Amino acid sequence: MDMLSFIYLVAIAAEAASGAIMGMRRNMDLFGLCFIGTVTALGGGSVRDMLLGHYPLGWVAHPEYLAFTIGAAVAAAALARQAYRVKGAFLLLDAMGLVAFTVIGCNIAAEAGVHVVIVVLMGLITGIFGGLLRDVLCNQVPLVLRRDLYASVSLVTGVIYVGLQQGGMAQGQAMLAALVVGFAMRMLAIRFNWALPVFKAEHVRGFDED
Amino acid sequence: MDMLSFIYLVAIAAEAASGAIMGMRRNMDLFGLCFIGTVTALGGGSVRDMLLGHYPLGWVAHPEYLAFTIGAAVAAAALARQAYRVKGAFLLLDAMGLVAFTVIGCNIAAEAGVHVVIVVLMGLITGIFGGLLRDVLCNQVPLVLRRDLYASVSLVTGVIYVGLQQGGMAQGQAMLAALVVGFAMRMLAIRFNWALPVFKAEHVRGFDED
Amino acid sequence: MDMLSFIYLVAIAAEAASGAIMGMRRNMDLFGLCFIGTVTALGGGSVRDMLLGHYPLGWVAHPEYLAFTIGAAVAAAALARQAYRVKGAFLLLDAMGLVAFTVIGCNIAAEAGVHVVIVVLMGLITGIFGGLLRDVLCNQVPLVLRRDLYASVSLVTGVIYVGLQQGGMAQGQAMLAALVVGFAMRMLAIRFNWALPVFKAEHVRGFDED
Repeated sequence: MDMLSFIYLVAIAAEAASGAIMGMRRNMDLFGLCFIGTVTALGGGSVRDMLLGHYPLGWVAHPEYLAFTIGAAVAAAALARQAYRVKGAFLLLDAMGLVAFTVIGCNIAAEAGVHVVIVVLMGLITGIFGGLLRDVLCNQVPLVLRRDLYASVSLVTGVIYVGLQQGGMAQGQAMLAALVVGFAMRMLAIRFNWALPVFKAEHVRGFDED
Repeated sequence: MDMLSFIYLVAIAAEAASGAIMGMRRNMDLFGLCFIGTVTALGGGSVRDMLLGHYPLGWVAHPEYLAFTIGAAVAAAALARQAYRVKGAFLLLDAMGLVAFTVIGCNIAAEAGVHVVIVVLMGLITGIFGGLLRDVLCNQVPLVLRRDLYASVSLVTGVIYVGLQQGGMAQGQAMLAALVVGFAMRMLAIRFNWALPVFKAEHVRGFDED
Repeated sequence: MDMLSFIYLVAIAAEAASGAIMGMRRNMDLFGLCFIGTVTALGGGSVRDMLLGHYPLGWVAHPEYLAFTIGAAVAAAALARQAYRVKGAFLLLDAMGLVAFTVIGCNIAAEAGVHVVIVVLMGLITGIFGGLLRDVLCNQVPLVLRRDLYASVSLVTGVIYVGLQQGGMAQGQAMLAALVVGFAMRMLAIRFNWALPVFKAEHVRGFDED
């Protein structure tokens, strides 16, 4: 198994744990935790593949992925109180997952032969849609749309990965560079609270509001 | 028309009525009730088919299904006050629908040639995703993730159906066994308030919360 | 570029602006505004294409559409306070978009060779699903399900467009008639507060409620 596949399996477990922990806070039952963990982990890739018409989906071809997501969700539920103590390790795994998902998403889109802009966008969708679906199922406005340098990290990772390859660099080296820079950027963003501007506008009247 | 097709039509009408009644409680207009009823009834199969890349979708090939869902939604809206009196009959139809959706979902996935684990999972998705989409449109955390033996009934139904066929039983007999056991399990779960464990954890701090 | 394509580009910009403004009211950051604007503008067509199995999706084949949606979202954020003053112009563009989306959706469904009822329905889905996804991401019950003659305008537009063609009229003339009648109907609905009946039923007990 290559390094990227290994990171991927660690990442889907980490994402599933994050989904299960948010599900616990919504008083979901055991099935709900396994379900939301799996959607969080595998939802990004599934949405990408449905947008591209790329079949079969990853987990349909590899049902063994479900063992990872369900196992991680159950483990997270069992260890939830302890889990918070390892928040640092968790954020690290989540950052690894974000950049790995991005690179994998770019690869699959590139194989599908789409425009280079769409390749980067599919990397982004792979990186963020799992968490976005998790938040929709937990009935909150998706965090990724509101704060944190999270989507931006995915975008930068994808741009570096695709850009270096367009510039003639070998795929393996471009991947390593993108993973390292993206991961470092995410860690720095957490450490220094980097964020994009928010347009505070609750007082702006909408056209379609209640 | 075979028995399963008849149950299916009854089931989509029952699901559409359940969607319309929840929509009324959100003050939806007539279009909204027809829309949410249809999504509740046909959403599970649609999500399954999009995940499998199985085209055309059922209601695209059979637009007459829409007459059932829209008719049931309008009838439910007109009779809502009376409808509650027949809650028992309603739960019975809903349980029939759950097991029928599951078996139909398994059939379509098996024809697509996917792994047996994915066959069971597609049965589950067919069974629960309509109600899940209904709850997302009604802006609440999906009930199926929180309580009741509902998803579990679908899983057990699928496992029995697929397992008996793997063990050599004819499809028709396996289907009958799965439908009967699944339906009985759902009725007993309602009667005796069976439920999966809930990990009450509102005090557990999440990693990604507000 | 033909007239319909021109209207389409204006329409996706207007929809993206409406999404961005609602995102601002949820305190989304710059990425969130661009994302929700793009989903609002392109989500309807994407859902239609995924339901039909019609690949590649419009924006995958034409990534330049994203420049329109992102540009409009950023412009709307920058000009939000002034934007409200041009609410009239905005509603006019939105109405143009609704009928243009509907006609384009009908065209793509008709090319896919589906039943005439599904052609009209795909026009409707193209017209309303962007706003529906916007509302789900903003954590509110979709406006289109609750009030206003909005979905109905899309339905009437599609029925006129398809009906006139079935009756032997040339496509161009049928399109013009549908666009004019649909647009006028939407304008009148806004002016005179036309709406479908709402079944106020908060006191009706549901079967599946909290």
